[in-house]
Amino acid sequence: MALTESLADIGEFGLIERIHGLLKEIGVKAPGVSLGIGDDAASFQPRSGYEFLITCDSLIEGRHYLPHHTEPLNLGRRAMAVNISDIGAMGGHPLYAVVSMGLKPETLVAHVEDMYRGFIQELNPFQASIIGGNFTGSQHTVFIDITLIGEVKRENIMLRSSARAGDTILVTGYPGQAAAGLLLLKKVKAAEDMHAHPLVKAYNVPKHRAKEGRAIALSRKANAMIDTSDGFLADLGHICKDSRLGAVLIQEKLPISPELKKVAFELEIDPYHLFLGESDDYELIVTCPPENVPHVRSAVQSVGQVPVHEVGRITDTIGDIQWVHADGTKRPVNLQGWDHFKR
Amino acid sequence: MALTESLADIGEFGLIERIHGLLKEIGVKAPGVSLGIGDDAASFQPRSGYEFLITCDSLIEGRHYLPHHTEPLNLGRRAMAVNISDIGAMGGHPLYAVVSMGLKPETLVAHVEDMYRGFIQELNPFQASIIGGNFTGSQHTVFIDITLIGEVKRENIMLRSSARAGDTILVTGYPGQAAAGLLLLKKVKAAEDMHAHPLVKAYNVPKHRAKEGRAIALSRKANAMIDTSDGFLADLGHICKDSRLGAVLIQEKLPISPELKKVAFELEIDPYHLFLGESDDYELIVTCPPENVPHVRSAVQSVGQVPVHEVGRITDTIGDIQWVHADGTKRPVNLQGWDHFKR
Repeated sequence: MALTESLADIGEFGLIERIHGLLKEIGVKAPGVSLGIGDDAASFQPRSGYEFLITCDSLIEGRHYLPHHTEPLNLGRRAMAVNISDIGAMGGHPLYAVVSMGLKPETLVAHVEDMYRGFIQELNPFQASIIGGNFTGSQHTVFIDITLIGEVKRENIMLRSSARAGDTILVTGYPGQAAAGLLLLKKVKAAEDMHAHPLVKAYNVPKHRAKEGRAIALSRKANAMIDTSDGFLADLGHICKDSRLGAVLIQEKLPISPELKKVAFELEIDPYHLFLGESDDYELIVTCPPENVPHVRSAVQSVGQVPVHEVGRITDTIGDIQWVHADGTKRPVNLQGWDHFKR
Repeated sequence: MALTESLADIGEFGLIERIHGLLKEIGVKAPGVSLGIGDDAASFQPRSGYEFLITCDSLIEGRHYLPHHTEPLNLGRRAMAVNISDIGAMGGHPLYAVVSMGLKPETLVAHVEDMYRGFIQELNPFQASIIGGNFTGSQHTVFIDITLIGEVKRENIMLRSSARAGDTILVTGYPGQAAAGLLLLKKVKAAEDMHAHPLVKAYNVPKHRAKEGRAIALSRKANAMIDTSDGFLADLGHICKDSRLGAVLIQEKLPISPELKKVAFELEIDPYHLFLGESDDYELIVTCPPENVPHVRSAVQSVGQVPVHEVGRITDTIGDIQWVHADGTKRPVNLQGWDHFKR
């Protein structure tokens, strides 16, 4: 019975009660919340010396996820991880989430609960919590829109606009894994067998690097930082544009994993295209003076085992991103990042 | 050319640039913002002695508005007013908005700009500003999801859960006007002639009572407050449920406007149904000790000319809302409020 129960059966207020109960049961209570869910607004108090960061991101059915390929729990984790990534890329610590969902009348209550379990699974490690939200009926499309607030000390905020010419460009992890995983899922019909594949896992449950981002910010050894939410090249482009600088990339230094190489070969796709383009990996691009590279590395190692690779350097040629080869020759890199509307 | 330009023509980053320009041109800069739009997150600092309120609400095409009846500017105003109303109903002052939109590739750039003009038109009087947001492609449904942050002093927060038995129930304005306006719009095909009708205007550009709510909070003469975003009866029900009390309403005291009466008569609808049910009016329900009624009235009068009516009183019969008649007899009021999912 409960497994087939839909929103049409229990209604908006019924759903609010259920989710409220779930949050009380398995969620944590973030510090500073003076009024949680249940009134026209929630309220929270700042810690002395800190300011707040705010970001929002949404996932839309059919656009950002394939309902038949993505379990609700993983969808919840993904939606929250995307936002946590943004707070981490600024050097902040996530605290308060507000979740707005558009749901269909036939949406299963159990699926909504699973999405919330996913949100909570991502928030609990930070002692962060959901303090408000909204459910709305949406006839055609399910969407999840999350606003996440974090805290940071002013002097630790990491910007995309403060790279300097000569900076080394570092990247965490292996960008492109999730893009390759998505391609695999789309090609293969019997998706069930694929869930254990590392690339499919990278797509289904994207990692964020918020702990790493915060550690880098606290080290104060980096000049600029951004997450790869628009794809590696587009986000490196944001650093260059907003810092009024350029960049060179060393192709053979880009961390392309063996799994990615294998799948790219099998699907006859350029592995560098997967690395540079849109991919749900949420790694960090960091720029720092060359002499600070070891410090940034040890900041990242202090919180986990995520690899850090040097992939190029920032130049003073405004807005220009080039491949540079061992013999010194250059050629432009011009893959477009993800754009939600462009034809 | 510019008037037929769509999002598919200028892309996500093109749209971001256009909106950023518009905000700089006609928006204000809210106090306390240390980092605005343009990075992974925005940042803001609290004023000493204040805490933050946060709320979110969304409008979905086809569900909350009829695209052919609603101009984009008014849609923007409505989406923001709904959120401003929530902050005001808590006694707060709106400060920072984060706007997330799902848009179709064929959505006109000019329409998105008009929606932003609507947001700004509602925010500017409060010296409040948009500090972040997100655009996403949504194939089937346009949605606007706004998170709004306000500030309030702890001692001035107004709750729905703190009504007391014996309190007088007050309501601002004339609930039901917008519901009647929407019915009119749906009945009449040539909607253009209707735009000047006061009920249609009430629906097209909903008013909020945030200034009034804040003035009531500062007076410290009221016990509980809520806005009528779920409809008068549902929201009075929230006060009763969360305060563990009941209420009696005096039918002849409900402020039914002459226009509403006329339209209800013409459309053969019970005017009390329009008053009690879901309607985009965003009035305030306030409860206070009978001796404080004049103080609450003068607080409201200190910021404008919105009428305040006494409509009943809070009782100690938990969860029960009844009509009470001059001869002392009672009968239950049992209209359901708006529910987004229920059949």
